[in-house]
Amino acid sequence: MNFTDAEQLASQLDASDTLASLRGQFDIPDGIVYFDGNSLGPLTYRSREVLTRTIEFEWRERLIRSWNEDWLAMPARIGNALAPIIGASPNTVTVCDNTSINVHKALMSAVALRPDRTEIVIDINNFPTDIYIAQSVADQNNLTLIAVPADRIIESISERTAVVTATHVDYRSAQLLDAEGITLAAHSHGALVVWDLAHTAGAVPFDVTALDVDFAVGCGYKYLNGGPGAPAFIYVAPRLLDTASQPLQGWWGHEFPFEFETSFRPAVGIDRYLTGTANVLSMKSLEAALEIFSGVSMVELRAKSQSLTTFFIDLFDAFLAEKGFSLGTPRDPESRGSHVALGFAGGKALVETMAEQGVIADFRPPDLMRFGCAPLYNSHMDIVHLVKMLAAR
Amino acid sequence: MNFTDAEQLASQLDASDTLASLRGQFDIPDGIVYFDGNSLGPLTYRSREVLTRTIEFEWRERLIRSWNEDWLAMPARIGNALAPIIGASPNTVTVCDNTSINVHKALMSAVALRPDRTEIVIDINNFPTDIYIAQSVADQNNLTLIAVPADRIIESISERTAVVTATHVDYRSAQLLDAEGITLAAHSHGALVVWDLAHTAGAVPFDVTALDVDFAVGCGYKYLNGGPGAPAFIYVAPRLLDTASQPLQGWWGHEFPFEFETSFRPAVGIDRYLTGTANVLSMKSLEAALEIFSGVSMVELRAKSQSLTTFFIDLFDAFLAEKGFSLGTPRDPESRGSHVALGFAGGKALVETMAEQGVIADFRPPDLMRFGCAPLYNSHMDIVHLVKMLAAR
Repeated sequence: MNFTDAEQLASQLDASDTLASLRGQFDIPDGIVYFDGNSLGPLTYRSREVLTRTIEFEWRERLIRSWNEDWLAMPARIGNALAPIIGASPNTVTVCDNTSINVHKALMSAVALRPDRTEIVIDINNFPTDIYIAQSVADQNNLTLIAVPADRIIESISERTAVVTATHVDYRSAQLLDAEGITLAAHSHGALVVWDLAHTAGAVPFDVTALDVDFAVGCGYKYLNGGPGAPAFIYVAPRLLDTASQPLQGWWGHEFPFEFETSFRPAVGIDRYLTGTANVLSMKSLEAALEIFSGVSMVELRAKSQSLTTFFIDLFDAFLAEKGFSLGTPRDPESRGSHVALGFAGGKALVETMAEQGVIADFRPPDLMRFGCAPLYNSHMDIVHLVKMLAAR
Repeated sequence: MNFTDAEQLASQLDASDTLASLRGQFDIPDGIVYFDGNSLGPLTYRSREVLTRTIEFEWRERLIRSWNEDWLAMPARIGNALAPIIGASPNTVTVCDNTSINVHKALMSAVALRPDRTEIVIDINNFPTDIYIAQSVADQNNLTLIAVPADRIIESISERTAVVTATHVDYRSAQLLDAEGITLAAHSHGALVVWDLAHTAGAVPFDVTALDVDFAVGCGYKYLNGGPGAPAFIYVAPRLLDTASQPLQGWWGHEFPFEFETSFRPAVGIDRYLTGTANVLSMKSLEAALEIFSGVSMVELRAKSQSLTTFFIDLFDAFLAEKGFSLGTPRDPESRGSHVALGFAGGKALVETMAEQGVIADFRPPDLMRFGCAPLYNSHMDIVHLVKMLAAR
């Protein structure tokens, strides 16, 4: 294969891409090829439109009245818009705070529901914030944090385990963890699970209902395109909602926040996972960006994502394997998420040089370049462009 | 006094108002008289300008690069912009999350620093979220929450007290609590204090340094005008920063977040109070709104605020006292914050009717109308307009 072949192949694949038109909903600057949707999704036209209305009409003109007219309903409404993306039923997802804080809420809930257990099991390669938060939850509750590689999670679960937590798509390798096996193993030992869907939601199908997951959390600013620092989400299984509690019990989690009662009474349902005032601008931006998903099936999205990453790996084999790059992502498309990682000595400098030339990716120490292949807006031709630049470094 | 006299007096007072020109920095719609800065500050021209740049340049164009170019530095930078407003020295304030979450962080820190104490003392009339959070912190640490009226706080502090927490300006009455007396009493018993400055910051002077306060938190969207759901702030006394810890220890609170270490090491200084990814849009909006304060002395701000609330109470006496309204705010200007509360049966409906006529206030159960008198943009003539409408109800 040479690059002319690659371009021809990319053209064919893009021509038969049923999601190709969605690229038009993103305002990606001319001259930019963007491979960092796994860190920060780009601006959608719809988010800009909604933000303008939020600033000019809701804040400037309606002022405090917007709370009753719209904003108080945001967490539940946006939670329901997001729910289908992770297979959740209505009124089981809410949108608030950031992922770290929602990991804290979920883990604290889980250990309170398993008061006689003594251990938390976590993927040692989890994104660090999950480990830091889990360590803190373990410390606060006099539990032991058992941190093991993903392939040893199942064997580490026992009758001592209160909760198992892991991120579904590894943030470095894009390795997909065995969500079904881990969830089943946890449940078979009476433990609960908290899945972090930061690199899943919006790019990789996940069905919290079919998997009978207890808790899930995730990020609004990666493949969901909510904008920088967009709020995170939290899912709680309906069977747990009546009994679960979480310690960040602020007024937004009260049954009647505007009665200003002196005693806390948790809201019925998922609202009890709210704490304080919602961040309106980012909530609205996320809500706008989620509209794109309403017409997209997760099956199509996954097929496109796999087509992109498979094509990338084909080009890696043809053009990069012998040029100092190593593949850091599983070859089996069923075993990987939506980014491709390449090891490369000097990757940090290369990512910076490429950005100056309009191709944006990111870097994770010690030597990993990451390329998010977002099925909503990346094309196969984007990948040819990228690999050409890598090969020419 | 009749309304012609009142208008003449208002004109004189407004003519000698050295802060009057600041009103021009707010984009308050024509026909709106706004008395709800104690709930949601209005849009500033500068916030709009900065938000546009954040969306169009930083997000759309620079994309992920904006984290290194600007956004990672926001919490410290905005904390330092806010610090003088509460008398804090540089690098002791950060901006993140919401007030409820920061109350949690501060109280958890405080009780960890006083491990042998058994009680938390709180103002029973505190804003409910503070009480709910304090109850949760007490429950998690097997402490007793002692909730008493403000005038009984000092006598309730003892050698058993780990921490005392209260809101400086009562959210209903605008009563100013005795910050100096309460802080001294707490310290004399070896306890710590957490002051909630939600209704203070931006309208009432407070000096965390002179008062030797341990922790303070507050809100970005009231008198600081950061926009709906703007992030909150947290102050920690420098003498505590090396030893204090807080349980929401996410990656943003790590010494080297981008080293992705497996073990948590708290950042040096106030950064350890961060948890997860900052909410960029609202952070930038708050930062823009804070620029107004850089040219304003807290003494001038307080004088204007007291002039407004005193004038309001004078008009209350002249026009409202005999029409079913009762004054819910202290008459002594040294004892009140920056809003005036009026009791009125049917206040909820009246607030709604007035809003339809362009005068915006708010309501707290059971019968309290609140009128925020924001020294940055309210005028004495605004108050004549308001009282005329109330008197004509």
